[in-house]
Amino acid sequence: MSLTEFAIVETTLREGEQFFSANFSGKDKIEIARVLDDFGVEYIEVTSPSASPQSRLDCQGLAQLGLQAKVLTHIRCHLEDAKVALDTGVDGINMVIGTSRLLRQYSHGKSIEKIIDLATEVITFIHEQSPQTELRFSTEDSFRSGLSDLLRVYQAIEQLGMVHRFGLADTVGVATPNQVFNLVQALRQCSSIDIEFHGHNDTGCAIANSYAALEAGATHINTTVLGIGERNGITPLAGLIARLYTVDSQILHRKYRLKKLSAVHRLVAEKVGITIPYNHYIVGEAAFNHKAGIHTKAMLNHSKTYEIIDPQDFDLTRTLSINHKLTGKHAIAARARQLGLDLDNSQIQTIAKHIKALADRQYLSLDKVDELLYCCAAYSVR
Amino acid sequence: MSLTEFAIVETTLREGEQFFSANFSGKDKIEIARVLDDFGVEYIEVTSPSASPQSRLDCQGLAQLGLQAKVLTHIRCHLEDAKVALDTGVDGINMVIGTSRLLRQYSHGKSIEKIIDLATEVITFIHEQSPQTELRFSTEDSFRSGLSDLLRVYQAIEQLGMVHRFGLADTVGVATPNQVFNLVQALRQCSSIDIEFHGHNDTGCAIANSYAALEAGATHINTTVLGIGERNGITPLAGLIARLYTVDSQILHRKYRLKKLSAVHRLVAEKVGITIPYNHYIVGEAAFNHKAGIHTKAMLNHSKTYEIIDPQDFDLTRTLSINHKLTGKHAIAARARQLGLDLDNSQIQTIAKHIKALADRQYLSLDKVDELLYCCAAYSVR
Repeated sequence: MSLTEFAIVETTLREGEQFFSANFSGKDKIEIARVLDDFGVEYIEVTSPSASPQSRLDCQGLAQLGLQAKVLTHIRCHLEDAKVALDTGVDGINMVIGTSRLLRQYSHGKSIEKIIDLATEVITFIHEQSPQTELRFSTEDSFRSGLSDLLRVYQAIEQLGMVHRFGLADTVGVATPNQVFNLVQALRQCSSIDIEFHGHNDTGCAIANSYAALEAGATHINTTVLGIGERNGITPLAGLIARLYTVDSQILHRKYRLKKLSAVHRLVAEKVGITIPYNHYIVGEAAFNHKAGIHTKAMLNHSKTYEIIDPQDFDLTRTLSINHKLTGKHAIAARARQLGLDLDNSQIQTIAKHIKALADRQYLSLDKVDELLYCCAAYSVR
Repeated sequence: MSLTEFAIVETTLREGEQFFSANFSGKDKIEIARVLDDFGVEYIEVTSPSASPQSRLDCQGLAQLGLQAKVLTHIRCHLEDAKVALDTGVDGINMVIGTSRLLRQYSHGKSIEKIIDLATEVITFIHEQSPQTELRFSTEDSFRSGLSDLLRVYQAIEQLGMVHRFGLADTVGVATPNQVFNLVQALRQCSSIDIEFHGHNDTGCAIANSYAALEAGATHINTTVLGIGERNGITPLAGLIARLYTVDSQILHRKYRLKKLSAVHRLVAEKVGITIPYNHYIVGEAAFNHKAGIHTKAMLNHSKTYEIIDPQDFDLTRTLSINHKLTGKHAIAARARQLGLDLDNSQIQTIAKHIKALADRQYLSLDKVDELLYCCAAYSVR
């Protein structure tokens, strides 16, 4: 597949604000927007200016920051929200309205006909007021919406000729990669404009679904740093990067400053008061940690045996851990060489056995392993 | 699709031991095995008894625990490992050997012919010694192995008529759901025995890949609690459960005691000294947290609007959070009713506006929101 046409719509400053512990100040938002811009995301989506007085000021401030990234705001399909959004000077507006039976019945109460009428009114208003504003129209809960309902809505909107991009949203995180592929493909076949995908992660498929969307012709993918958002969140930025890296790392190098990825994550984690999970993609503590003897042995011979992402591309380092019961003699020998010690094969085997037996009974520090190696070298008679 | 034929091969006590901070004692392993058994996993895989002296004792102890789950141990394709494993009395042996060019060249140095010869020797030995031992043969790094190499190996092994199950392993976490579907399907078409899938999560597709494997005819899926394992780990147990829940929750209710899922996670997190990530599937703090006004409004009308997993099935509760700038008047009104306060629509609107403005400037506790509601009720003249 070609990855040439995609763009990241980074929504830490909108979806991420819906994360339970997020409460960004205006200053926080500027800091976060700047590091995301520095990393190179193409779009930054921010909370609707209608959400609160400060949200409005923040949206205006971010729109005027002079970032490389386009600043979008996310609004309901309301004329009033659209007016307020236009006043902020954002580059684009991401509009959304629920189309599933559940959301029509229990959220806004509108029929498909009413949705088309309302969207037409709001889109026409925005386009007349500001034709240069980049306009995305998205359904909400698209994957629990009827296909014919969806296509009716999108076709009616496309005919207006005023919208730059359609959105498909897996709002409840229920879709499988096949379902995402099929729906994006269906829309791709009916429409010629760009397609954005927004995927929640309730069932752990947000990254795979985003990739399936790209495979089917989507052009824009929503992410947040650390995946933060409503409930357990959406496609994490580092997860999308990890997924695309193995497909085409060169395009990522061209589009983004990968070495800045860690800094983006440290900043957002600090602002929302969370620790970066041990298992987070690329930037988590465990991402490049190799432990079992069979793994460390092969890694010493060739770094691609058990690694498909090069940590150096992200200014990170790998760890071959040796202070445990699964350790292997090759990793112990490598450590001895690193310490400048000249130990033969049988000495290394003896030490490896000893480390396993010790680690069986207690926590063993790397210092303790080093001590054993020095000790063996000092007392050995060759 | 039908989910009737799958089983979970839970490998927290093998793959999970390869997690950087895991160092289970014999007592830890028994505790973890018991909660997993109580939850209802069909298999528990444990570290090779050849790894260390204590690993051998632990493997024996777990095999004799009288669990409902079958106890398997995971070994290299070595005659010596097989002998030691058979002596432990485990129900089954999960054997693995690398088949990718990188692993053949930089790990064990064997050609495909040699791999077939060695596997034949070890499998025949195990079968002759103990024909009732459930035997799985897996390639390692299957998704970077040549398809013709893989099929040659599997066909040669299947002809022996001694193996109960084949394994396919995405050892480096590189596969996409389509690649998993295609490889499992290819093996399914060539072979009539069960297929196990083991998927690492380096590129965030482990859960989707496990599901794709099931869609293509795999019968056994590897998981660990919290996804712990080499590097950033493999398919997390709760993630697989979440994925399958939306496809067929009834079969999960029949097979597993879902209400025990949280306890399993709390125990393992404690044993490896980590916090359950905020965004972990089902059991993470954020999984059932609803925040934006548009979400909480709809959730008050119908719980399925923004939730596809019922927290009650897991003995968990949802939170509608209202003390923030994205809050909505419906959620505030619901809170007032919960407190037994009789406030009219205009009072609720005033309070909602006030809460947004306050939260714009500072952190707002739920107590503070309640105080505002009580205050409004006390001073209102109706």
